[in-house]
Amino acid sequence: MEMGFIGLGAMGDPMARNLIKAGHPLMVYNRTRSRAQALAAVGATVSETPAAACTAGVVATMLAEDAAVEAVVFGEHGILAGLPRGGVHISHSTISVSLSRRVAEAHRERGQFYIAAPVFGRPDAAHAARLIVVAAGPAEAVARCRAVLEVIGRKLLVIGEDAPAANTVKLSGNFLIASMLEAFGESFALLRKSGVEPATFMEIVSAFFQSPVYDNYGKIVAEQRYDPAGFKLRLGLKDVRLVLAAADDAAAPMPMAGLVRDNLVSGIAQGFGDLDWSAVARVAALKAGLKS
Amino acid sequence: MEMGFIGLGAMGDPMARNLIKAGHPLMVYNRTRSRAQALAAVGATVSETPAAACTAGVVATMLAEDAAVEAVVFGEHGILAGLPRGGVHISHSTISVSLSRRVAEAHRERGQFYIAAPVFGRPDAAHAARLIVVAAGPAEAVARCRAVLEVIGRKLLVIGEDAPAANTVKLSGNFLIASMLEAFGESFALLRKSGVEPATFMEIVSAFFQSPVYDNYGKIVAEQRYDPAGFKLRLGLKDVRLVLAAADDAAAPMPMAGLVRDNLVSGIAQGFGDLDWSAVARVAALKAGLKS
Amino acid sequence: MEMGFIGLGAMGDPMARNLIKAGHPLMVYNRTRSRAQALAAVGATVSETPAAACTAGVVATMLAEDAAVEAVVFGEHGILAGLPRGGVHISHSTISVSLSRRVAEAHRERGQFYIAAPVFGRPDAAHAARLIVVAAGPAEAVARCRAVLEVIGRKLLVIGEDAPAANTVKLSGNFLIASMLEAFGESFALLRKSGVEPATFMEIVSAFFQSPVYDNYGKIVAEQRYDPAGFKLRLGLKDVRLVLAAADDAAAPMPMAGLVRDNLVSGIAQGFGDLDWSAVARVAALKAGLKS
Amino acid sequence: MEMGFIGLGAMGDPMARNLIKAGHPLMVYNRTRSRAQALAAVGATVSETPAAACTAGVVATMLAEDAAVEAVVFGEHGILAGLPRGGVHISHSTISVSLSRRVAEAHRERGQFYIAAPVFGRPDAAHAARLIVVAAGPAEAVARCRAVLEVIGRKLLVIGEDAPAANTVKLSGNFLIASMLEAFGESFALLRKSGVEPATFMEIVSAFFQSPVYDNYGKIVAEQRYDPAGFKLRLGLKDVRLVLAAADDAAAPMPMAGLVRDNLVSGIAQGFGDLDWSAVARVAALKAGLKS
Repeated sequence: MEMGFIGLGAMGDPMARNLIKAGHPLMVYNRTRSRAQALAAVGATVSETPAAACTAGVVATMLAEDAAVEAVVFGEHGILAGLPRGGVHISHSTISVSLSRRVAEAHRERGQFYIAAPVFGRPDAAHAARLIVVAAGPAEAVARCRAVLEVIGRKLLVIGEDAPAANTVKLSGNFLIASMLEAFGESFALLRKSGVEPATFMEIVSAFFQSPVYDNYGKIVAEQRYDPAGFKLRLGLKDVRLVLAAADDAAAPMPMAGLVRDNLVSGIAQGFGDLDWSAVARVAALKAGLKS
Repeated sequence: MEMGFIGLGAMGDPMARNLIKAGHPLMVYNRTRSRAQALAAVGATVSETPAAACTAGVVATMLAEDAAVEAVVFGEHGILAGLPRGGVHISHSTISVSLSRRVAEAHRERGQFYIAAPVFGRPDAAHAARLIVVAAGPAEAVARCRAVLEVIGRKLLVIGEDAPAANTVKLSGNFLIASMLEAFGESFALLRKSGVEPATFMEIVSAFFQSPVYDNYGKIVAEQRYDPAGFKLRLGLKDVRLVLAAADDAAAPMPMAGLVRDNLVSGIAQGFGDLDWSAVARVAALKAGLKS
Repeated sequence: MEMGFIGLGAMGDPMARNLIKAGHPLMVYNRTRSRAQALAAVGATVSETPAAACTAGVVATMLAEDAAVEAVVFGEHGILAGLPRGGVHISHSTISVSLSRRVAEAHRERGQFYIAAPVFGRPDAAHAARLIVVAAGPAEAVARCRAVLEVIGRKLLVIGEDAPAANTVKLSGNFLIASMLEAFGESFALLRKSGVEPATFMEIVSAFFQSPVYDNYGKIVAEQRYDPAGFKLRLGLKDVRLVLAAADDAAAPMPMAGLVRDNLVSGIAQGFGDLDWSAVARVAALKAGLKS
Repeated sequence: MEMGFIGLGAMGDPMARNLIKAGHPLMVYNRTRSRAQALAAVGATVSETPAAACTAGVVATMLAEDAAVEAVVFGEHGILAGLPRGGVHISHSTISVSLSRRVAEAHRERGQFYIAAPVFGRPDAAHAARLIVVAAGPAEAVARCRAVLEVIGRKLLVIGEDAPAANTVKLSGNFLIASMLEAFGESFALLRKSGVEPATFMEIVSAFFQSPVYDNYGKIVAEQRYDPAGFKLRLGLKDVRLVLAAADDAAAPMPMAGLVRDNLVSGIAQGFGDLDWSAVARVAALKAGLKS
């Protein structure tokens, strides 16, 4: 299926390549043009504007934050303007629930379809087409795009027709991970000050939880491998802020999310913004009087 | 190896039975005598006092809390009095780091050995001999008792010679679980108020974390199956208090543990003390204005 | 000095009346026209648009929230459009630091002056001209408007030329009050469950802190007089969110503000949004298992 | 009235001197004898044991913590042993509610009276006889000792016959102060990072709260005068732990107390244990990336 793809960063680039590999001809757009040209080498057509990437009637976006999505959707030569009536916008970005709702409405008013389809996984999972995709949107549009949604990940879960719900699910998932990181930070600080090696504790954690996520992040924290970042702390903070905003709107207190937000902010204040977000554990260590 | 076993509750009883099955003759003691007599039916000898259960030179204890361990160790006809010089006390109970340290010293002064060997797992894992055992104590004693330590679980991890370190590890592990429960509670409250079914979210959680612990507890919370309790909320609160006490002694702040403690206390205040400790999620739901 | 006054709510109305009483002829604007007409009875001239209220070259605004200020400043027939070059906008509203910064820049670009002058005090203090006014803005403009700034309160503190700093100060002050309310809530819950009357505790608090603010709020909480609201819980939540937003921008973690936010959100969820914001103490009481 | 006085530290010494000045002959005991001998110079009689200081039938104690009170009350040659039947023990120390309850019962069993009478105020207030005294105990004993209770302070509040309630009140009061300190710490961090001088903010705080307590502590924090300590951070932490223990026993969650505890623990971890407890504000500053 011919389609557009907008946003070729650390996540978008491998996702787009997997679509091409699976036989979907792509029209690609990226603000920094060189990243789009790199994809031309594997067969993509470079578009000059977001609108131009929409002419085939289906377009996917994978952008870093609300502001970027707003610009690409509502801006001059944006998706709203370029997508034909009956066309589909698949939004993979991790954005606020409220923006997702606003974009959904704008498309609906124009007779276009909007699928929120955020993904779980880091760049390595995107490369390996091992993402988990959570999709919500009009059943007709989801049915039309199912092949495209399945090609980028190892699991596709369609949760309903209310697009913003998929964003709530994505943010809630990230909150679970952030909580795990803070819990690692606090327990490792206690253990280190009690003379127990983090690696020793990780053996137990690994045997008990039996989760690759715990193993992976636990090892990063135990070895303090925060640089280079798999997912930057400042982006992690952005996501925790988004979950708190959603919680505010829903009148559902999330004190643990608030606590994690505070410690991520403290991480920013201490210069860890570009480290991996698991460096929230370093904030806990410093508060305990450890040197790192 | 002939040995004593003290404390035949929901965890101790199946552990003792697995030892007998593996060919270790047991002298058993329990405060409520009927539980000891039940084990006589499978070949155990009933002792009249803790001291009497120590005559073979090795004794294991599995008790509910600090006060019980103090009574059994330091009391008249207690373990300190009954264990011969060179004897070994294996303590499986989840107790405070400070009591573990005090018991370790008392044994050392008497030329006895003390191994702290707390376990991870609920009663069903104890039955199936699928516990995870974390042991610390004098290498000589651990070597002598290795067979006994291996028989009750699916994994034995020996982490060193400083016994209380094993208790710190056990409490830290329980803290990770408690944090996960609180994170479930907060995110489920958000999701329910946003119109997303907990079961839908659990599909994602399951695919992402791939952890039987997340699956198991997540399902309990999603279905609100808090009664009967696998592990009572009031005992969970006890453990979180112990981790906070250890953190206090080590001067390692654990704000997330404090937050979980507050919500467990609120659970007690609202009458959930005998529900499963995952009912901390109900506290989050009520705070969000949900009815259950 | 002839001037405009926009926003005639529970705070703005008495402030405007005090200006008139002090001899300053007012052109008044209010979205709901009837409130402006009420002031005509004491000599004010009713303006049809915000812009029309700006013709004298000085205009004060007292509005409930960011959105109202945005509309009145940036909207068609708004202040930016109506204020002559060299004119002064005095903003008394409690708004976000970031909006204050944006408004300051917009005025500067047009050769207009902007003074942020938020006030401390509830409607009764506004009536009695007993507010505390914190002002920041260009020295020349502050000098020109000093008489006007002094007439509405019992104390004027000019803190510099950077207008948004006055908003940060205002939000920080409200945060101190909110923290006091939460501390009351938690300690009263403990005392009530321990058999101590809140009124008894307030005698000590009164003797120790010797603060009319503690006396006033403490009594409200002790007697649970949350209705009618002096300041609604949902507005208190708005302010705490604004202080958290400012803290986020400044990378200064404020965990206590986060905690208060959570409990105010829980108050909203339980239907206390229109009660006085001291009803955050009721949230603490309910969490402790008390009935009110 | 002839009486004993035990505990002549920074608080006890000036309290004892005020009793002597008011005409009450004292028998004094202190673990470090030299401090007792200093009082002999102004007319006190030095006792060799706590019991010996009890022979007149009334004894007051002012000690630093639970362990000291336990030793002096229950120890050999302690108060329980030395006080005649019908005698009165006035306990001014800030101790746990549970120990106060235990001491009350022990006295009752021996036909002795126990008044818990903790005080508010720092050493300078003790010198000036400006303390606030909160007393609870048997009405008959309070009536007998009223003159003695009134002499050491500027206000005496008798709150009932249940002695431990006075300790709950004292701990709750200290919690209010601790919350204020944390609120100062967080808001000063925000203000400093926003370019506002703490001293400027304090002018507003002073005008608004009109409380000598806010003025006094706010100035200490604004000027970072944490050394020498008026009240050491490690003692402040002890008190916050006691309020949390009381809250635990009463099943009343106090999340703000938990948060303050965490930050005080972090202060200990970073070497601020002997600074004034208002140095909890330095913990907030460091978390915000400030250097002090």
